[in-house]
Amino acid sequence: MDIIVLEPGTPESNVKNIIKKLESKGLKTHISHGTERTIIGVIGDTSKVTEDEEAAIRAMSGVENVVRILKPFKLASRDFKKENTEIKVRDLVIGGKKIHVMAGPCAVENRAILFSIAEKVKAAGATILRGGAFKPRTSPYSFQGLGEEGLKYLAEARERYGLAIVTELMDTKDIDIVLKYTDIIQIGARNMQNFKLLLEVGSTNKPVLLKRGLSATIKEWLMSAEYILSRGNQNVMLCERGIRTFETATRNTLDLSAVPLLKQITHLPIVVDPSHGVGKRDLVPPMAKAAIAAGADALMIEVHTNPEEALSDGEQSLKPNTFIKLMSELKPIAEAVNREL
Amino acid sequence: MDIIVLEPGTPESNVKNIIKKLESKGLKTHISHGTERTIIGVIGDTSKVTEDEEAAIRAMSGVENVVRILKPFKLASRDFKKENTEIKVRDLVIGGKKIHVMAGPCAVENRAILFSIAEKVKAAGATILRGGAFKPRTSPYSFQGLGEEGLKYLAEARERYGLAIVTELMDTKDIDIVLKYTDIIQIGARNMQNFKLLLEVGSTNKPVLLKRGLSATIKEWLMSAEYILSRGNQNVMLCERGIRTFETATRNTLDLSAVPLLKQITHLPIVVDPSHGVGKRDLVPPMAKAAIAAGADALMIEVHTNPEEALSDGEQSLKPNTFIKLMSELKPIAEAVNREL
Amino acid sequence: MDIIVLEPGTPESNVKNIIKKLESKGLKTHISHGTERTIIGVIGDTSKVTEDEEAAIRAMSGVENVVRILKPFKLASRDFKKENTEIKVRDLVIGGKKIHVMAGPCAVENRAILFSIAEKVKAAGATILRGGAFKPRTSPYSFQGLGEEGLKYLAEARERYGLAIVTELMDTKDIDIVLKYTDIIQIGARNMQNFKLLLEVGSTNKPVLLKRGLSATIKEWLMSAEYILSRGNQNVMLCERGIRTFETATRNTLDLSAVPLLKQITHLPIVVDPSHGVGKRDLVPPMAKAAIAAGADALMIEVHTNPEEALSDGEQSLKPNTFIKLMSELKPIAEAVNREL
Amino acid sequence: MDIIVLEPGTPESNVKNIIKKLESKGLKTHISHGTERTIIGVIGDTSKVTEDEEAAIRAMSGVENVVRILKPFKLASRDFKKENTEIKVRDLVIGGKKIHVMAGPCAVENRAILFSIAEKVKAAGATILRGGAFKPRTSPYSFQGLGEEGLKYLAEARERYGLAIVTELMDTKDIDIVLKYTDIIQIGARNMQNFKLLLEVGSTNKPVLLKRGLSATIKEWLMSAEYILSRGNQNVMLCERGIRTFETATRNTLDLSAVPLLKQITHLPIVVDPSHGVGKRDLVPPMAKAAIAAGADALMIEVHTNPEEALSDGEQSLKPNTFIKLMSELKPIAEAVNREL
Repeated sequence: MDIIVLEPGTPESNVKNIIKKLESKGLKTHISHGTERTIIGVIGDTSKVTEDEEAAIRAMSGVENVVRILKPFKLASRDFKKENTEIKVRDLVIGGKKIHVMAGPCAVENRAILFSIAEKVKAAGATILRGGAFKPRTSPYSFQGLGEEGLKYLAEARERYGLAIVTELMDTKDIDIVLKYTDIIQIGARNMQNFKLLLEVGSTNKPVLLKRGLSATIKEWLMSAEYILSRGNQNVMLCERGIRTFETATRNTLDLSAVPLLKQITHLPIVVDPSHGVGKRDLVPPMAKAAIAAGADALMIEVHTNPEEALSDGEQSLKPNTFIKLMSELKPIAEAVNREL
Repeated sequence: MDIIVLEPGTPESNVKNIIKKLESKGLKTHISHGTERTIIGVIGDTSKVTEDEEAAIRAMSGVENVVRILKPFKLASRDFKKENTEIKVRDLVIGGKKIHVMAGPCAVENRAILFSIAEKVKAAGATILRGGAFKPRTSPYSFQGLGEEGLKYLAEARERYGLAIVTELMDTKDIDIVLKYTDIIQIGARNMQNFKLLLEVGSTNKPVLLKRGLSATIKEWLMSAEYILSRGNQNVMLCERGIRTFETATRNTLDLSAVPLLKQITHLPIVVDPSHGVGKRDLVPPMAKAAIAAGADALMIEVHTNPEEALSDGEQSLKPNTFIKLMSELKPIAEAVNREL
Repeated sequence: MDIIVLEPGTPESNVKNIIKKLESKGLKTHISHGTERTIIGVIGDTSKVTEDEEAAIRAMSGVENVVRILKPFKLASRDFKKENTEIKVRDLVIGGKKIHVMAGPCAVENRAILFSIAEKVKAAGATILRGGAFKPRTSPYSFQGLGEEGLKYLAEARERYGLAIVTELMDTKDIDIVLKYTDIIQIGARNMQNFKLLLEVGSTNKPVLLKRGLSATIKEWLMSAEYILSRGNQNVMLCERGIRTFETATRNTLDLSAVPLLKQITHLPIVVDPSHGVGKRDLVPPMAKAAIAAGADALMIEVHTNPEEALSDGEQSLKPNTFIKLMSELKPIAEAVNREL
Repeated sequence: MDIIVLEPGTPESNVKNIIKKLESKGLKTHISHGTERTIIGVIGDTSKVTEDEEAAIRAMSGVENVVRILKPFKLASRDFKKENTEIKVRDLVIGGKKIHVMAGPCAVENRAILFSIAEKVKAAGATILRGGAFKPRTSPYSFQGLGEEGLKYLAEARERYGLAIVTELMDTKDIDIVLKYTDIIQIGARNMQNFKLLLEVGSTNKPVLLKRGLSATIKEWLMSAEYILSRGNQNVMLCERGIRTFETATRNTLDLSAVPLLKQITHLPIVVDPSHGVGKRDLVPPMAKAAIAAGADALMIEVHTNPEEALSDGEQSLKPNTFIKLMSELKPIAEAVNREL
């Protein structure tokens, strides 16, 4: 049921037009004359009323507001699927009791550095190696990533260290090459509403890590997940990585309340990236702990052996020793919320 | 040292004016001609340059920008005082190893309900009773609080249950009456920049809980603390309670990254109020856990025996059983971060 | 009519409880079983359901959401009063065909400067003199205003130059003294939700200029106006002065779309303050023009004879010559939208 | 010159490391020991210090903050090019004295509707026809556009009515087909940081209309323009279309202050889209007027002959009669700011 609020004094002819339009879509209506407003209740399967049809109704003479009761996403909704989605990534399961940690450099810079980092994060207990081969950078003058060369290093590191890998896909043109190497396709925050890209990854069955856009509402984020799910790929995990607010003391504002909220309304696993969320190395460990306490299924953390020489985001990368210490500190938190790490 | 960036092509006479003005304040300057901009470095004790003098310099012809290097707050800064401030509230210490939980109803509604809630939160382990007698309400048609009658009930509950009390002061006119009863004066989010009120509570030595404004930056928040500290009252604790962002799925966005950031830059204790932060009862427990994992010194949580009949904020109040369960779940998190509860 | 959306699978007993509660308030209900959600339509005079009662219903078991159809403000609404409110300030009318310009310094600094500015803004066509005697300042170390001395200078300037005056009231304690001198009481952005202050000015019949809070929604702003109106003072004008967003290139983001939107939903006059809205002198003239084009009833502009020596906000103050030029440029814009200046 | 602020108590060895690193980049340094902080002034052509190198310096031990004085964009800057850029689109010039109006439907729906709208907007004085053939839609279940069929209709309408055309490109894969038909390539708000797409359009010489991202700062927006300019395409116009803020009464918050600000810092023409900016038909005319008063070089306005049947954004589309009226009302505003329409 949806609700259509009429402007005061709407002539009867306009009301009839609106009702006629709704009935033409197979819906029934129920008029209610209140003291200040007349309201049309729309009865029937309004989930089939599209965004476009809603806008058309809003555009009709006499309509003051349309209030939609149902969520616009379906496949992503916990109403649609009660049990948690568990995603298999090689021999790992994301979304189960075990919390996974994805760690590694922001960008793959060269083979030696990547291997050195991979070795250390593996030893500390990470199960997935992160690293960008295609890098979205604010400036055209910044390092843009190694491309396929970087993907090859990641694949090599996977074999040598027994880590699954996650890397970003930025452009539909690169999908085949990224699919060839990666275990998880990352869709970055800036591409959360790159709908063509979402449709492409939706047509594969590769696990997708969908980062939240800088100013995306939770509803929009789930609609982007819906794009992927609607094409048949059910392996979508959501990654909270901070939203843009007025506060500039941190790089972004990590919205941890999104974690328990998403757990209520969707069955998809939730990952938290505190590194991008705060953008300052010293704040990453406490926010990683908080993310697990809030119910995250996985973490994504930037680690670099030499942040001072990193080609990207050195400021927010943990040094290996800090990462090792953090991993040990996360364990009791995970246990306190009935998870394991 | 501050930096003054000049517009390209600023005539020499303007540059001289600027330098003259700075020197008249006892400061030295160092000019640096770059390829694109000329810059004046200001040397000396620029901490004495006020906000107003800075604005005046910005207003001079030829000035493109003024970059201030030093933080505008002093007494609130960890540079000024290295060790954590511990605040004594009756026989409790806030800011020490023990994490305190302030719990109770949003508003004091009547004696019986307050006592019933107080008994239950005490039994669950809370040490401080919260409850509003003066309530800031968006609508003039909403319940505005019991006033002094409410304060009396709080004071009675303190005696009967052995809880310290915290309650809000909204207006300078009410300060004497609030001081008479409360152990901690709460300054609400909407009054964070009610500077007259800050000056008044700064002139007492009563502990103050200063809530963050809905759109206050961390810097502005600390400047408001500075108002209180500058009047001589050193007993200020800061309370993160969610900021306003574009996201409407939660009442506010609880900015937990403010907790570790504040721990770096200020010596004042940090309280987190997850109830107002998220505004939905089911999300309060995970966010309470996350707050402790992030390093909070205390929590403020709304509890009501009958949220469905509460006169204010029932939607976000925990029922006693949920609160009892939460308190037991918080303990292992506190231990995991070397605190106790 | 309001709408209550039930959680899927809500037991019949809970539904009955909810209906019973609604009926106890004299309301009727209409249940509608949809394919995905059951909905209770609430029929009757729901405008009497307070914010608190709404929250209590939200807190009931089985309630997923409450959708309120009616606006929470009444006296401020154009539904309540169709024709524009015109406010008399001495011999001026704000909200009529003539657009008024309020101009003057941010703060009253001394008699000579104030008089010199007053003379110039009068000559340029301003009809109202602005100037703060009580100044809300972010820092306790900044100039806080001259207090009553400043009010006296304003009153003197009024007599000498034939300008009405507007000045800020920050604290309930100062209301008598401010009432004694001013023609319009300004409630600053930081005090938009200082409800005790709103109630006090609501109990007078002095015109009130209510600035929008930094992060106040239009609904909240009108609720604050409602506080004043509900006490009997009908002389409220609203002043848009920029909202806080993620953008830091301007001091605030001037929300001009609020002007035509407010014209639709309220009968109160709308003032725009481009000086605080953008915070940079060079941007004030184009935004002043835009404000008039968007439908503003009045402007508030900072002017200073010597911004480089101003004690507050010099950066955004126009010099008299720029102000004179602007006033002449505003005329054809005003005419283009059927107003006069 | 950039500034590096050191943490208090940074050991001399760390300071030396930092200086060594800077000198290795051919830069000179000037140390200044203040009372509270030691600062390193960096002298030389710091414009060559990339975003990455800056981050690496931030990551060094002892560095508290790095303050960059120069803007990160160059080709887009008015420092780089003093005179306004004028962009030729067929026989039109955007960025000159004449203000152009781009009008048409949100999406191209079919040939007949498009032609009917084109005829009307042409008659009213619009010079450019807008219409989407590839539509970015929040929901996968919404109308996604006609694709090449829509482009053909646009091209036909161009010939028949003598209008230039502008249409959106969403994916690098579609660039050839869009280039084949359009006069101006629109990059939508959601793709403002789709860097691969920016590089592709940068490699053509087709005029580009670059919409501002929903939460893009002005700096980031200009960096995205820089991506296009750096590839050799100088024909970039910027389109303000509203930013996302906490206010939900309008679809977005139209940031008109961006117009005069951009005029100061860039030479590129500025377009304003009030239709998306506010999202409500009745607010479009006043905001269109305000945009011209603020200094816009062009407007983009949605017009539909039958908004109630539009497949997309009917709610914000003007009907032809309203558009005709608006065009005549815009003329005196344009003249008042020394432009013509």
